[in-house]
Amino acid sequence: MIKLNDYEKQLKDRFLKLKLEAGSHSPSMETLKSSIPEIEVKIDACFLSNPYATDLFIKHLHRDLILTNNLRRFLEFYPSQNQVIAAKIGSAISLDPKSIFVGNGAIEIIQAVIQKMVKRKMVVVLPTFSSFYEFAESNLEIVYYILDKADNFKLDLSKLKDFIRIEKPDSLVIVNPNNPTGGYLHQNELIEFIDAHKNLTNIIVDESFIHFAYEDSEMNNISIQSNVNEYPNLIVIKSMSKDFGIAGIRAGYAIMEPSRVKELIKHGYLWNSNGLSEYFYSKYSDSLFREDYEIVRKNYIRETKNFFDNLKNIPNIRTYPSMANFLLIELIDGTKAEDFVFKLLLDYGVYTRVGNDKKGLNGEFIRIAARSLDENKTVIESIRLLFGLSPL
Amino acid sequence: MIKLNDYEKQLKDRFLKLKLEAGSHSPSMETLKSSIPEIEVKIDACFLSNPYATDLFIKHLHRDLILTNNLRRFLEFYPSQNQVIAAKIGSAISLDPKSIFVGNGAIEIIQAVIQKMVKRKMVVVLPTFSSFYEFAESNLEIVYYILDKADNFKLDLSKLKDFIRIEKPDSLVIVNPNNPTGGYLHQNELIEFIDAHKNLTNIIVDESFIHFAYEDSEMNNISIQSNVNEYPNLIVIKSMSKDFGIAGIRAGYAIMEPSRVKELIKHGYLWNSNGLSEYFYSKYSDSLFREDYEIVRKNYIRETKNFFDNLKNIPNIRTYPSMANFLLIELIDGTKAEDFVFKLLLDYGVYTRVGNDKKGLNGEFIRIAARSLDENKTVIESIRLLFGLSPL
Repeated sequence: MIKLNDYEKQLKDRFLKLKLEAGSHSPSMETLKSSIPEIEVKIDACFLSNPYATDLFIKHLHRDLILTNNLRRFLEFYPSQNQVIAAKIGSAISLDPKSIFVGNGAIEIIQAVIQKMVKRKMVVVLPTFSSFYEFAESNLEIVYYILDKADNFKLDLSKLKDFIRIEKPDSLVIVNPNNPTGGYLHQNELIEFIDAHKNLTNIIVDESFIHFAYEDSEMNNISIQSNVNEYPNLIVIKSMSKDFGIAGIRAGYAIMEPSRVKELIKHGYLWNSNGLSEYFYSKYSDSLFREDYEIVRKNYIRETKNFFDNLKNIPNIRTYPSMANFLLIELIDGTKAEDFVFKLLLDYGVYTRVGNDKKGLNGEFIRIAARSLDENKTVIESIRLLFGLSPL
Repeated sequence: MIKLNDYEKQLKDRFLKLKLEAGSHSPSMETLKSSIPEIEVKIDACFLSNPYATDLFIKHLHRDLILTNNLRRFLEFYPSQNQVIAAKIGSAISLDPKSIFVGNGAIEIIQAVIQKMVKRKMVVVLPTFSSFYEFAESNLEIVYYILDKADNFKLDLSKLKDFIRIEKPDSLVIVNPNNPTGGYLHQNELIEFIDAHKNLTNIIVDESFIHFAYEDSEMNNISIQSNVNEYPNLIVIKSMSKDFGIAGIRAGYAIMEPSRVKELIKHGYLWNSNGLSEYFYSKYSDSLFREDYEIVRKNYIRETKNFFDNLKNIPNIRTYPSMANFLLIELIDGTKAEDFVFKLLLDYGVYTRVGNDKKGLNGEFIRIAARSLDENKTVIESIRLLFGLSPL
């Protein structure tokens, strides 16, 4: 069990104050650095992003835009309209562009869908990504279906079905794989569930972490996005930030019934992409880039799996099954999550995410992101040392 | 008077079809190039942007991000939240960051303001930027105050005052300088008008072209943005695309009463900047960059003024007074605006904007943007040749 001394406690209080000021999100690196110089962040294991995909994208961007002096035109001129970019995405994922709504990051789509499509009452599965309830206007009723720790936070769809029968919402949000639990619903069971809920106005499925999940030994890419053709109440939201490692570009899209895309674009969202997100989507629809991406995606999944195994071997913590690029861990030796996160940061420069502030997550939880191979090793060794365990 | 032959007429019909498909905006260069290869665009005089400011920004970006290999972190990591970026803007324009709402381009702010703040009935001065009415939801009543060609499209505020007294709107939109007329209201008369309309819920003033306007011989920067402190119903919207020549980055902000910023951010818009727009705002708040910018701004204004003078000397057209970086011209020799635009494009590669599709603009109007010195010269010579006039 980890305990802090008085000096550490003082620093921790300053750290917690910063966190409080940052709202429901972690304080940024820059804020941390300038406010508490005693802390040096060496590894940001809060940050949910495939670093190898960033490497790949930067390599292409360097070759396509920097060496050729082509960057200027992506910054100087207006990017294309929403539906022109949707056509590029459509060719990448073999879906009708008319069913694709492009967002300034997935976050803009979450806001648009929650505020413009959800009308009366929405069921949100907790714990989950907070924007799904934080962005709701006050006239919207939200009811929470809380995942059970005893079930490993696995979403039991038959129980959810009962919950929906009783609550009679018009809309439902499922994040798959879920954040921060990492819990995963198989494509078959999810589609079966959607099929049984044609009466709902909106079934919103956020697949922002789906590139890290797999159902076969070859780790082939999976998604229910094409099922929108069959289920017009289905809305599949996809962030590009995590899997492609490009959070700064703000790229995301959603698949939805074409009339819904039309309705959204009728009153706005025409010019919401930027030059570099448009460039990204031209790479996304380039089969050579996609081939290279598949290699780094699978490599990252393999390393992530190994990282998870090493975390599972630490006796002071309990881990929960994850199909995402992060693991939810629970401290079971009496250590407080805030003390763990703070001491790991102060002593080893490893920054992890406390789970206490997540609605529906009660206990000493921490979310740890998989990073590069070397960083993962350092994270494991740091946690082992923190608990007084021998190195691997 | 310019007339087209049969071959040109055929091409023009294809061109107009493209325009129709592009909605209320011009078809993009890329679309044009691939659809009508006979056309080679050499100068895009539709594009309202200071090219010297782009040069300056690219120079800084190259030094700060490319040579140092710092670009990656702006693309990989999440940009800061809305209010963190507002603080940078606040330091640049010496206003309270709490009164600054950052947008994914001004267009996102127009959408947010029209859809979330305007409640019942809005007066829009025509002709103007179409998004102000296109983004309105169907429950909003819009009444148009049409500018009079006989008054040189000058907005007569005493007439507008009468119009408002009769129509009883809750909101009003004024673009200053106005697009596409270029018409300008002096700071004094505009503020006097705002002072007399404290009963309106929203007075929305779009100052996206204000960096091209001036009221003294030194062409000092002007704005009514600080007047929001005195008039809580005032909302000043500012695009950065035109004056800083960075349309691809999507940067814009609005000044409004702090409680309104808070209300907008309560339910979204937290993460709507991208890495490069955040970088841009760090330059915007850098006094050395701003000094360099002031030089290119004033230089561009001087050249633009000279360009306008040369357009005014062409006898086949009538020009309207402009304080923006474009001039609205009217063909007075019987030539059709579409024929003029098309033949100037086909024969000289100079692309200009037909005004016919602009609500409230009836007649043979064309909007011509000022570009670089050399491009301006070519535009003037091309138009003169098109009309059979001697070169300057």
